[in-house]
Amino acid sequence: MADEKQRYSMYDLIAKKRDGGQLERPELAFWLQGMLAGSVPDYQTAAMLMAIFWRGLDEAETFALTEEIVASGEQLDLQGLTGVTADKHSTGGVGDKTTLIAMPLAAACGLKIAKMSGRSLGKTGGTADKLASVPGFRLDLPEAELLRQVSEVGLAVVAQNKNLTPADKRLYALRDMTATVDSLPLIAASVMSKKIAAGAQVIVLDVKYGSGAFMPDVDSAIKLAQLMVKLGQSCGRRVTAVLSAMSAPLGAAVGNALEVAEAAEILRQAECAPVSADLRRLCLVLAGEMLYLGGLAANRAEGWRQAEAALQDGRGWAKLLQFLQAQGGDTAALEAGNLVQAAYILPIKADCAGYLAPVDAARVAEIVQFLGAGRERVEDEIDYQVGVRFHKPAGAWVEQGELLADFYASSLLRAEAAERELRSILQILPEPPQLEPLIWGLLDEHGQARPWAELINQQ
Amino acid sequence: MADEKQRYSMYDLIAKKRDGGQLERPELAFWLQGMLAGSVPDYQTAAMLMAIFWRGLDEAETFALTEEIVASGEQLDLQGLTGVTADKHSTGGVGDKTTLIAMPLAAACGLKIAKMSGRSLGKTGGTADKLASVPGFRLDLPEAELLRQVSEVGLAVVAQNKNLTPADKRLYALRDMTATVDSLPLIAASVMSKKIAAGAQVIVLDVKYGSGAFMPDVDSAIKLAQLMVKLGQSCGRRVTAVLSAMSAPLGAAVGNALEVAEAAEILRQAECAPVSADLRRLCLVLAGEMLYLGGLAANRAEGWRQAEAALQDGRGWAKLLQFLQAQGGDTAALEAGNLVQAAYILPIKADCAGYLAPVDAARVAEIVQFLGAGRERVEDEIDYQVGVRFHKPAGAWVEQGELLADFYASSLLRAEAAERELRSILQILPEPPQLEPLIWGLLDEHGQARPWAELINQQ
Repeated sequence: MADEKQRYSMYDLIAKKRDGGQLERPELAFWLQGMLAGSVPDYQTAAMLMAIFWRGLDEAETFALTEEIVASGEQLDLQGLTGVTADKHSTGGVGDKTTLIAMPLAAACGLKIAKMSGRSLGKTGGTADKLASVPGFRLDLPEAELLRQVSEVGLAVVAQNKNLTPADKRLYALRDMTATVDSLPLIAASVMSKKIAAGAQVIVLDVKYGSGAFMPDVDSAIKLAQLMVKLGQSCGRRVTAVLSAMSAPLGAAVGNALEVAEAAEILRQAECAPVSADLRRLCLVLAGEMLYLGGLAANRAEGWRQAEAALQDGRGWAKLLQFLQAQGGDTAALEAGNLVQAAYILPIKADCAGYLAPVDAARVAEIVQFLGAGRERVEDEIDYQVGVRFHKPAGAWVEQGELLADFYASSLLRAEAAERELRSILQILPEPPQLEPLIWGLLDEHGQARPWAELINQQ
Repeated sequence: MADEKQRYSMYDLIAKKRDGGQLERPELAFWLQGMLAGSVPDYQTAAMLMAIFWRGLDEAETFALTEEIVASGEQLDLQGLTGVTADKHSTGGVGDKTTLIAMPLAAACGLKIAKMSGRSLGKTGGTADKLASVPGFRLDLPEAELLRQVSEVGLAVVAQNKNLTPADKRLYALRDMTATVDSLPLIAASVMSKKIAAGAQVIVLDVKYGSGAFMPDVDSAIKLAQLMVKLGQSCGRRVTAVLSAMSAPLGAAVGNALEVAEAAEILRQAECAPVSADLRRLCLVLAGEMLYLGGLAANRAEGWRQAEAALQDGRGWAKLLQFLQAQGGDTAALEAGNLVQAAYILPIKADCAGYLAPVDAARVAEIVQFLGAGRERVEDEIDYQVGVRFHKPAGAWVEQGELLADFYASSLLRAEAAERELRSILQILPEPPQLEPLIWGLLDEHGQARPWAELINQQ
């Protein structure tokens, strides 16, 4: 007998999930549309998110949620482009500049890449923040310009369009304030909705695990990868996932301009510093996987070889410069090797001889955030010049007094505090430490988790 | 190294409870104070409430939460009154007008009662709404006037003071929108914080169970009662709880003026209609329990006898009139037996002879809400005149064509819809139905659950 102004009641939907029930697609749509229209207040969404954190979402619910998030906004239409469109996504990590290396390599080999990149709220900057350290670089290309650049250059990276997946933006902001980020189905729906809306046919995921990542171990990373690959395939995309460790920072540099400089070094030098070797290998795997999935390489080994060739012969480096310049970037400083211009550059040297212990990614991130490289709030200004650069890889033998790291600061006060912290995490061991390989393996297009060694041997 | 502007982070507190941790008293205080000050947004409180719904609160947390809710506002100071102060609280039910009967009886026997009563958001009105059906009755006495009336008359009932337990008001409003009402520790903290802040030394609870109550069965009602009695005792109050069934409406009438009229009939007539007999007995038990706990009766049986005597000799009825008049109420219509003045009074008669089945409290409440006796939103206007009055108790033998109930409506359209519903729940059975006793028993001052039969035999 009650008035039936609305088809559903948000209260009833929260109660249903609270009691372990399954939400139907029209119910999820009612929630998301109401949230965006303002008829479902944020406190009801927050309660629903905690109920989902508790009770989970099954595959059908996660798929429906993903599609409804995609439907909440516009989509990027890449169908007018000639060639195969590709995208990659990393679930986040400290020092992750793989986009700046793998994407120029993939584009140099013929893939078409229109990448949307978020300004991160993490402890260190996102890809958009890193690129903003290049003078003049424009992140806000209009859609027509973006498509023209992808067509001509093969690669464009823009800040995420405001009209793409608005439901994800609102959900993520609330999850971030209500301790409901670490939910497998919510992570999967958030990542995949953005990738689906961004339009690429080929999507390679880089799912991280370890102390610096959402997922604590390989097994949980495989679960997340399986869910995301399935979601993407349900939406008609070709998707696989690389599984890689994130307990230590990725590569040598952490900090915006420092990371762009490291990416440039890797692309322009045939020989790679040992501290960047793992990062370089991961980028080749990611680029190769995109080439294989996109049908430009007959098998994975062929994909990796194509990416390696583009790196060796300088086509990757040329593509990076061409792409930066196409978006208004002044690459003179980058080419001259002096993009990074911090007020204070302070060295950290080894107190004694021994083997360098792996450093903890989460603690490095905190130090770099403290130096000013990340945001705590959306409106915070980022200092592009600050950060840390390591000179030795974990496990390397170092002599007493040898340079371990430099850190880049804008104030002496912050520099001193950061130096104390950094010293405490750069430990020298009498015995070589146990080192974890960076790349565990792959979750392939058939949903199979395949360790690296098996992949290498087969191809 | 992070800035320490605040002692706690609400995010961390939500995550702690989400993971099953125990919240410390200063953490609970930080949350509630932030919620009221606006520094903790409602969506964080909503997520915390769902986490508490999931993980629960232990006794120490519930006690701390109760005390912090009390500390969030003012308290009523009753220490200047001569005599023993008493209060009662019912966990809610359909047709519950026990306050209007038990309180005049207890006051007539010498207890001092300053009762705060909420305007209900339930399907039918709260005690404040019922009293508002008496012309001229004022619910908004200033504190000095309230205390003077209690001192002179022994009884005053006012709408809940705005400055009492503001944290409970906010929490309850959010629980009511986020499907987190039915949490044992949250119910207990909400009820007991209001009773503690209202200042009485003696508190008798009426904890309901059954289809029309929060608690589904006796066992869960005993658990809630044990928790509430312990909370009250920890705060230095004398507390016990009556345990009573709420599957059928309490007494004959449901609807605001109708319920006041039924209360008046019970108090002024030595003989009670069979349909009101259970309600009358419960009121005598509640009044007697207050008298016993307050030390005005040597034992429970003596307390019940005192209450019964006050009913039989008309002191209860005189006290009701005196109290209503002291607060500005015009009791002429009540005394003349024509307080209820609905536009349409429609009878429902038995289709056939047989035994009357118990009616479902929740469905009766929906019908009465539909007629206009309750609120869906705080700002909704209540129609005091509408409701239902039953003429036969469950299990009674009725002849074909005998009057079962009248219902009171203000529009024919609503009346017709309500009539259909009411007919469908007034069923006639060929065999006498199994009837549940109204009063299961008592949770006594030692935390012991004691069935009614045992209590009767001992005293």
